[in-house]
Amino acid sequence: MDNPVVVEVTRGPSVESFHRGAGAVVDADGGVVLAFGDVARPVFPRSAIKALQALPLIESGAADNYGLGEKAIALACASHSGEPAHVAVASAMLAAAGMDVSALACGAHWPLGVEAARALARSGGAPTALHNNCSGKHAGFVCLACASGIDPTGYETPDHGVQREVKAAIEDVIGEKLDASRRGIDGCSIPTYAIPLRALAFGFARFGAGQGLGPARAAAARRIRAAVAAHPWAVAGTRRFDTEVMSLLGARAFTKTGAEGVFCAALPEQGLGLAVKADDGAGRAAEVMIAALIAKFLPISDAERVGLAPLVAPRLLNWRGLDVGGARPAGAIG
Amino acid sequence: MDNPVVVEVTRGPSVESFHRGAGAVVDADGGVVLAFGDVARPVFPRSAIKALQALPLIESGAADNYGLGEKAIALACASHSGEPAHVAVASAMLAAAGMDVSALACGAHWPLGVEAARALARSGGAPTALHNNCSGKHAGFVCLACASGIDPTGYETPDHGVQREVKAAIEDVIGEKLDASRRGIDGCSIPTYAIPLRALAFGFARFGAGQGLGPARAAAARRIRAAVAAHPWAVAGTRRFDTEVMSLLGARAFTKTGAEGVFCAALPEQGLGLAVKADDGAGRAAEVMIAALIAKFLPISDAERVGLAPLVAPRLLNWRGLDVGGARPAGAIG
Repeated sequence: MDNPVVVEVTRGPSVESFHRGAGAVVDADGGVVLAFGDVARPVFPRSAIKALQALPLIESGAADNYGLGEKAIALACASHSGEPAHVAVASAMLAAAGMDVSALACGAHWPLGVEAARALARSGGAPTALHNNCSGKHAGFVCLACASGIDPTGYETPDHGVQREVKAAIEDVIGEKLDASRRGIDGCSIPTYAIPLRALAFGFARFGAGQGLGPARAAAARRIRAAVAAHPWAVAGTRRFDTEVMSLLGARAFTKTGAEGVFCAALPEQGLGLAVKADDGAGRAAEVMIAALIAKFLPISDAERVGLAPLVAPRLLNWRGLDVGGARPAGAIG
Repeated sequence: MDNPVVVEVTRGPSVESFHRGAGAVVDADGGVVLAFGDVARPVFPRSAIKALQALPLIESGAADNYGLGEKAIALACASHSGEPAHVAVASAMLAAAGMDVSALACGAHWPLGVEAARALARSGGAPTALHNNCSGKHAGFVCLACASGIDPTGYETPDHGVQREVKAAIEDVIGEKLDASRRGIDGCSIPTYAIPLRALAFGFARFGAGQGLGPARAAAARRIRAAVAAHPWAVAGTRRFDTEVMSLLGARAFTKTGAEGVFCAALPEQGLGLAVKADDGAGRAAEVMIAALIAKFLPISDAERVGLAPLVAPRLLNWRGLDVGGARPAGAIG
């Protein structure tokens, strides 16, 4: 099945490039409110489900045990830009568990945020695993292991207690078993299991509404959503999409980017979950898709609509600041 | 018409993302040797035709007038990484014409090469228009204007003598008129005209073979090809695709990347021109397509095939260096 064109990228009078993709909007009972493209094909959710992967950190009591505040909980769900305060929170999370950067298995990379990367270079520094955009998630895994009295060594591998607990939490929320035959290794070395978009959207509807989850899990989801709503900068960074959307809309929208063009979101008040993937893995297309769906399904004020417009249909400026084109939703979401 | 899937991106056991696209391989008489997807739809060639845009610099005598060597001629065709030697050559080209960086209309950006950008930041520097990946092309435009006794001011605009001459050269080589109704503004502020892939491939077949061009134009094309073959680093940079391919294959392959998933190439000994575009604008897909087509149409040694393999089917390593997936040609080029 060919997925439809969902985003067009224009230059001057012409469509220069276009993206195909699929997406689902599902309610907390599993009712499909909107679907376009193939929403049954399993796709790797990558970082878009970090909030689900953080549930055991809360439910186990590890977060309370180590006194992790809202900013740390938001960072545990983050694909952060590696700005100094992100690094500091990740470091403090590890210290709370009596560990340090050497416990992280995510690998080092230069900050995702280009300005943070330049500032690090300017200071003569070099990146560590704390700058990895997943360092908060990994620090959370280390905290979970330590608080549970498990050796954190190897926490990134599928058979370690941490990943088994994380897998069970995801399975419970999305209502499907995860299959080792559809398992890949993520950029940060943890397992990633391919999941249909429809199941991801269902999972985020339940994550947002708390419906269909046990009381402890529902409370953990609520706490994660509140933490991210209070600290949208922690979950991404300066001028990043997730930070901009949640700074604008607060707790009414929970969004999370994933690599290779995946995006998940919850609209808690509407009881809706959203999941999209650009076939080609383009993040720019996933952002336009999820922004367009939020504008469609979340009642927003005129001012909020104006604030969201540059995300729904971003303009492209060239190196001299000339407006040379843009991107816009098309087809099912146009 | 839906273009076919041409590149698959895998993770573990699964295809994670995939790219659709179109491409043409055409001989210097206009015979289509291979075509997949819609090769009649006009696409913006962007930087993939810089070598054609550099023809007037040679033909006018400007390059000789200012004593531009092979490295400068290669830089005039470059989307360079902004490494120190790229910047130095661009600066010297301007100085030869009695001009400096203030004459450039391309705008400033941080070096494309991440290591060059970090080194610049580490030194406390900031980018100028000389670091713009198009600075060599723009310096060539300034040289062309000055040598022709034209005021270079506004050389980036469609009605300036420089752009009119550049447009006429492209039209002659591709054998089609360029249409102002299909004109956009490029990232570096010069006009870019949408052109069918079939015409682009035909143009590069003629550029490579010299066939069908006037003697002065054919000589200029030969000189540009020799300059780039001698200095494949100047046309791109350290570990860049074009540099790797031409370092491996020398004058037997001329390749040039363009933004938004376009790639053009010439195989002069075979008299073939190649042009591809990924629908979604992905450079990673265009690289795999053009590498696969070169491997298919250029007779290469076993050692060259081994050298080309990481470009035809690159492996993806994660932040800890684990092999987690890769990309590969599919369908018509698989």
